[in-house]
Amino acid sequence: MQEQEKFMKEALKEAKKAYNKLEVPVGAVIVRNGKIIARGYNQKETKKDTIEHAEIVAIKKASKKLNAWRLTDCEMYVTLEPCPMCAGAIINSRIKKVYIGTLDEKTGAAGSVLDLFSDYKFNHKVEIERNVLQKECEKILKDFFKDLRKIKKEEKNK
Amino acid sequence: MQEQEKFMKEALKEAKKAYNKLEVPVGAVIVRNGKIIARGYNQKETKKDTIEHAEIVAIKKASKKLNAWRLTDCEMYVTLEPCPMCAGAIINSRIKKVYIGTLDEKTGAAGSVLDLFSDYKFNHKVEIERNVLQKECEKILKDFFKDLRKIKKEEKNK
Repeated sequence: MQEQEKFMKEALKEAKKAYNKLEVPVGAVIVRNGKIIARGYNQKETKKDTIEHAEIVAIKKASKKLNAWRLTDCEMYVTLEPCPMCAGAIINSRIKKVYIGTLDEKTGAAGSVLDLFSDYKFNHKVEIERNVLQKECEKILKDFFKDLRKIKKEEKNK
Repeated sequence: MQEQEKFMKEALKEAKKAYNKLEVPVGAVIVRNGKIIARGYNQKETKKDTIEHAEIVAIKKASKKLNAWRLTDCEMYVTLEPCPMCAGAIINSRIKKVYIGTLDEKTGAAGSVLDLFSDYKFNHKVEIERNVLQKECEKILKDFFKDLRKIKKEEKNK
């Protein structure tokens, strides 16, 4: 198995944790020197805090682990294209490269709605690779929203 | 004194707290029904965490106070134009309106480098008012960077 797929599978494990809490299933891991140093999954509803996206949770943990806000030698694997908040956080944290699972047409800031990584000149340039395990990363989201609609329908019929 | 200026002065008090910790002096307050419900200042260096911008700190506090990630009826006053991360967080949190002190040519995402609030269609539209107490908000930053240069020069000459 390729290294990229191995780490995206770990990000998918994080997304699954979100799924189990009825959160939109997005997961992320941060890798340094070939090892995962931080993990995160979306906890927006559970924590009632819109900052608690998978990427931000992982960045905060990585910074704590390295005792530094600069994550210069780090790479992120994230199952869904980052929103502007998370893409901005990735730039601010100086992460070297981001591997993205599937794209987000509604809020994606790595090429879908806009491309914060390529279209503007900030003081740090992040490398991007898209569509890593795309089908698996798309499937977990589709399954989740299907489940959610089912739950809502059942609640309505009670 | 106009209400807008009153609240921006409170955001400036927060910026001063950052200044005193040798952090880039940016401060924010969140107002609901005419009252300040949350305050924040930049703590990036102190906390060694790039997520700890003034706006994010204030949004997290407001969410905790209201026990909700949606800050629908809230307005933010921030001394410096938000970066993409913070502008994205403001959109995600459904804040109604943002009053901005001074602009940031290098990373500002409310019109300077790009305009996340107007140029793209997200599922929430944030109203913006710029240049509230602009001179005061610019001055604190200029004073800070002047001091910082002086400190660095003194350290070099030791």
